[in-house]
Amino acid sequence: MEFSSKLLENAVNEMSQLPGIGKRTALRLVLHLLRQPEEQTLKLSKALENMRTQIKFCKSCHNISDVDLCEICANPHRNQELICVVEDVKDVMAIENTSSFRGLYHVLGGKISPMDGIGPHDLNVVSLVEKVKSGQVKELIFALSSTMEGDTTNFYIFKQIKDYNVLTSTIARGISVGDELEYADEITLGRSIINRIPFEASLKS
Amino acid sequence: MEFSSKLLENAVNEMSQLPGIGKRTALRLVLHLLRQPEEQTLKLSKALENMRTQIKFCKSCHNISDVDLCEICANPHRNQELICVVEDVKDVMAIENTSSFRGLYHVLGGKISPMDGIGPHDLNVVSLVEKVKSGQVKELIFALSSTMEGDTTNFYIFKQIKDYNVLTSTIARGISVGDELEYADEITLGRSIINRIPFEASLKS
Ligand SMILES: [Zn+2]
Ligand SMILES: [Zn+2]
Repeated sequence: MEFSSKLLENAVNEMSQLPGIGKRTALRLVLHLLRQPEEQTLKLSKALENMRTQIKFCKSCHNISDVDLCEICANPHRNQELICVVEDVKDVMAIENTSSFRGLYHVLGGKISPMDGIGPHDLNVVSLVEKVKSGQVKELIFALSSTMEGDTTNFYIFKQIKDYNVLTSTIARGISVGDELEYADEITLGRSIINRIPFEASLKS
Repeated sequence: MEFSSKLLENAVNEMSQLPGIGKRTALRLVLHLLRQPEEQTLKLSKALENMRTQIKFCKSCHNISDVDLCEICANPHRNQELICVVEDVKDVMAIENTSSFRGLYHVLGGKISPMDGIGPHDLNVVSLVEKVKSGQVKELIFALSSTMEGDTTNFYIFKQIKDYNVLTSTIARGISVGDELEYADEITLGRSIINRIPFEASLKS
């Protein structure tokens, strides 16, 4: 691509560092900003800068937070003895959107993945194990993605805490509500049969 | 979407102002920046800010430029008497990438579109007509998109300059090189037959 301006070229290059944004898309976005009032670009650049330089992670659950202890951890109406273990901040948002969970979270920051060189010490595992050891947790819910790495991570944590007095569970896998059986992948369908629940229990949820 | 951080929410909101970037994509991009070194976000935000606040438009052709007169207009090896009229900065880049044009450009900044309230005075038309009137231009090539608005704009400019001694042409429309005839739309195919060129001439290009 031939640029008539270094300023334009820089902006396009930086924009195209973002995942899924190629050079052509980056150019389209940058030229759009040029047609909008200057204020819009300044608001965007300031918002990104402030986010990256000022954001904090909750000292207890490692969720993104503007304060030391996040709103969820600090909420006295939530069940402090029930902890949902997730990979990522996005998962907290997804579960919060369902309004079906009133416990706390623990954000690992990824999954154990020897292939990618990610071991337990690259994740927030130690602080989770400490919480369990301190006796403040009654139940851990594993809500990691259903992959080999997710299973490995679950099992690694399970081994660390199994001698302490804590219940462990994993979220149910199955056919999505509203989905046609015939379109489900076979592993999900198989698991949904193995993990079937009493019909009467299903009527309550 | 439930955000645990105002800083995160602001960044996602500003990002999702960009065309084609929804809230979910914006969140994915912003969380990606959070996982990268702080420097990457600062380079992006600075590049956008500098681009928007410092960029200039060439005083002659209205192309984006870091200096008063752009590199193309200032290049003595380019034919100053041949001007290609385009809608947009992107079109200059597209034509420059073909390396097939050695004249100058004139960027209108859009097309006449009564439906969108865009008249000739919202575009860089006056300065183009002035160039022609001054006698410095031998040929104008209209390279606007082949739409009703493009045709209207071409015709508007043509009327302003037709009494001056200037050649006018429009770029050839036809079947893209390498395209199968059967997949071409019928208007393009029709025009390509009407505007057929002598076979011997086609051998030279
Ligand atoms: Zn927290
Ligand atoms: Zn110029």
